[in-house]
Amino acid sequence: MRNDGSNAAGEVSAARGVRSPAPPPRTARATPGSRGALDFTDVRETNLAVVLRFVRHHTPCSRAEVAAQTGLNKATVSSIVTELIERGIVEEIGASEERRIGRPAVMLTLDGRRFVALGLEVNVDYLSAVAVDLGEREVLSVHEPFPAASAGPVACVRRLAELARSMMAQLADQSRRVIGMAVAVPGLVDLHGLAVTEAPNLGWRDFPVVDQLRAELGDADFPVSVENDANLAAVGEYRAGSLSHTPNLVYITGEVGIGGGFIVDGSLLRGSNGYGGEIGHMPMLLGGPRCGCGRHGCFEALVGTNAIIRAAVPDLAGDSDELITDLAPKVAEVARRAACGDRHVVDTLDRVGNWLGRSAAVLINIFNPDAVILGGYFVPLATWILPRTHRTLAAHVIAPKQGGCKVALSTLGFTAAARGGAASIIDAIDTARLPLPG
Amino acid sequence: MRNDGSNAAGEVSAARGVRSPAPPPRTARATPGSRGALDFTDVRETNLAVVLRFVRHHTPCSRAEVAAQTGLNKATVSSIVTELIERGIVEEIGASEERRIGRPAVMLTLDGRRFVALGLEVNVDYLSAVAVDLGEREVLSVHEPFPAASAGPVACVRRLAELARSMMAQLADQSRRVIGMAVAVPGLVDLHGLAVTEAPNLGWRDFPVVDQLRAELGDADFPVSVENDANLAAVGEYRAGSLSHTPNLVYITGEVGIGGGFIVDGSLLRGSNGYGGEIGHMPMLLGGPRCGCGRHGCFEALVGTNAIIRAAVPDLAGDSDELITDLAPKVAEVARRAACGDRHVVDTLDRVGNWLGRSAAVLINIFNPDAVILGGYFVPLATWILPRTHRTLAAHVIAPKQGGCKVALSTLGFTAAARGGAASIIDAIDTARLPLPG
Repeated sequence: MRNDGSNAAGEVSAARGVRSPAPPPRTARATPGSRGALDFTDVRETNLAVVLRFVRHHTPCSRAEVAAQTGLNKATVSSIVTELIERGIVEEIGASEERRIGRPAVMLTLDGRRFVALGLEVNVDYLSAVAVDLGEREVLSVHEPFPAASAGPVACVRRLAELARSMMAQLADQSRRVIGMAVAVPGLVDLHGLAVTEAPNLGWRDFPVVDQLRAELGDADFPVSVENDANLAAVGEYRAGSLSHTPNLVYITGEVGIGGGFIVDGSLLRGSNGYGGEIGHMPMLLGGPRCGCGRHGCFEALVGTNAIIRAAVPDLAGDSDELITDLAPKVAEVARRAACGDRHVVDTLDRVGNWLGRSAAVLINIFNPDAVILGGYFVPLATWILPRTHRTLAAHVIAPKQGGCKVALSTLGFTAAARGGAASIIDAIDTARLPLPG
Repeated sequence: MRNDGSNAAGEVSAARGVRSPAPPPRTARATPGSRGALDFTDVRETNLAVVLRFVRHHTPCSRAEVAAQTGLNKATVSSIVTELIERGIVEEIGASEERRIGRPAVMLTLDGRRFVALGLEVNVDYLSAVAVDLGEREVLSVHEPFPAASAGPVACVRRLAELARSMMAQLADQSRRVIGMAVAVPGLVDLHGLAVTEAPNLGWRDFPVVDQLRAELGDADFPVSVENDANLAAVGEYRAGSLSHTPNLVYITGEVGIGGGFIVDGSLLRGSNGYGGEIGHMPMLLGGPRCGCGRHGCFEALVGTNAIIRAAVPDLAGDSDELITDLAPKVAEVARRAACGDRHVVDTLDRVGNWLGRSAAVLINIFNPDAVILGGYFVPLATWILPRTHRTLAAHVIAPKQGGCKVALSTLGFTAAARGGAASIIDAIDTARLPLPG
């Protein structure tokens, strides 16, 4: 009752095709449990997505490899590849040098020339924007100070739209076209990726970012979505950071607000309604300093950028009820004084390191990640924060040798979230759902 | 350059076969990122696994449905099903009643008569064991008080082996055979599922549970593994609890130690080395009561069963350095006094509810789960703990309406972890890796 060889082999190789590599974290919304599942009724589109995914995750590869590994027949692969090349999505990049025998195969890769994805970030004191091509190579990157918290949501989105339009103009000069845009915001984002439910440190509440941005942009013929900043920063690190493709990552933003982004087995943790990753209000110190949320002793009231500035350089912080502006130069001043050996500043950063270590230990105990990545303003202050953080972690992580977890500094800095936003747009091509006109 | 219909349809249906339903959480260890991937060289075994998985997740189903949905041809399916029936893994259960036209199809389901999986649990004051058949129906269940903490690891495993042998004898009388055994332990478990790295509340350290258990069992011809109790309890709830198949679940054990088990999008969170889920030592109260771990103010030092007994019924707790024995009757006494309106006991449980709420809020903010399930001794005390927990959660969860999260009591009680252990053994048949002799 055994199969005959050819039949069984056919079945297996077809099956193998769908055993695609571990996909990058999805940020697109889907029904929980439907991870990575396709549901196309159109055969051609399904096969196109299979080929595109394969090329994307095995670039560069030959048509023959695509056929062998996806189980699609060679004629089908050839036809699909021709279409993808015509549409500017895939390109040929000459022969593989690894082949020793026979005619060298023409290799395929994603065409980086035509389409780009845009990631934008609004944070308390800056805007960032990154454009990447289909191969996720960075094409353009902008970071500018902007008083988002005091400007209010409408003015903020207006400036964001100006930034986007200016980038799109530059990209158009390079004959590049935007296929999608994701905006990172430090706050809770609604289930559909359209509006910000609450971003306390920006003072936004139930604000329809996407509608507003579309109105400002005029005629954007591509998908626009909004997502939590820490989530997108974690995606950015997973895709393009110094520890990219490390399967279990914890990202901690170092801004006025402290957010967490969690990559679990290569997928972004979003939770049942997309509200996952809120670590800023872990109650760390009963009766501790007042937090922006109204509670006391929250994680971000102890290690957020405002908290650091108020504690380390009170002479620059103004009244306790006042919004602190110009964070970047003030953080630079904190670092300068610490470098000069200012005892008060050094002690303050040591205490910050302690609270950061205690809180990071909570996360390491829960997630047992390969690494915790610190972003934002933790990076320029790391010299004085990290020594204590390491000692506190050693005292508070339960697993032996910290469960193998290391602490790293973001190398993407203030563009991590924008980078992740752009990368998440590129993911959409895996399902061939994006309009990619020929 | 379009495909002709039959060709393309063949490719798509073959591809569809491998798009199996969201698999249940895996507890078997694998390289991170390789989630659910198969790597068989033997074609027959691969196809057998595909058919078995399909029957398991779509039971009852007909041979024709298996063929249509997996893309395997009918002869192959028929041959494989025949083999599975002969091996006692699949059985026919008569015709589907839903078919209105034509000959009624014979339906297939997993054969519950021949093979069972055993889940065992050691906890501070009890042993539990559950046997389930291939369809995960409970066949046998045992729960007995046992002073595991004072008995020491060797005596404890000896008693566990006696329990297992007695169950296996009963199962043998029913012509049932054990295909695997998983042991839940409240502690850190090594990467290979063989030894307990540290179980502070049992006093175990670097203890080779599996070797010891195998030695006691004599001639176990099946896989034996050990796993963290909270992880397995979360799997038990996900598979057999009142909220089964809820994709995002947080389970909190209510034992002497407090452990967390996290189901994220239907998969158990294990972390990079299997050490995930350690929530018992979240530092909740600086300078709080001393924890078994030596630190102060840990979550479990505030809400663990010992902490509750010491605070609520100090007259029954003995000296503070003494091990508290007979937890179940003491917890019953706590409940009795609370029911009688004993002010001290009621206030104590209210405070426990507050700490539980603050800590659960941390987890809800991070995971945005559909539900938090409370197990163990939280269940009999819930009447007096939960009201305050609900109020504290409302004050500490950031997402609106608690992000949709509800708090539920385990209906599996002290057998949740054993139930999850047994279920995790059954998962192995998805990959056809288990020896299932015909």
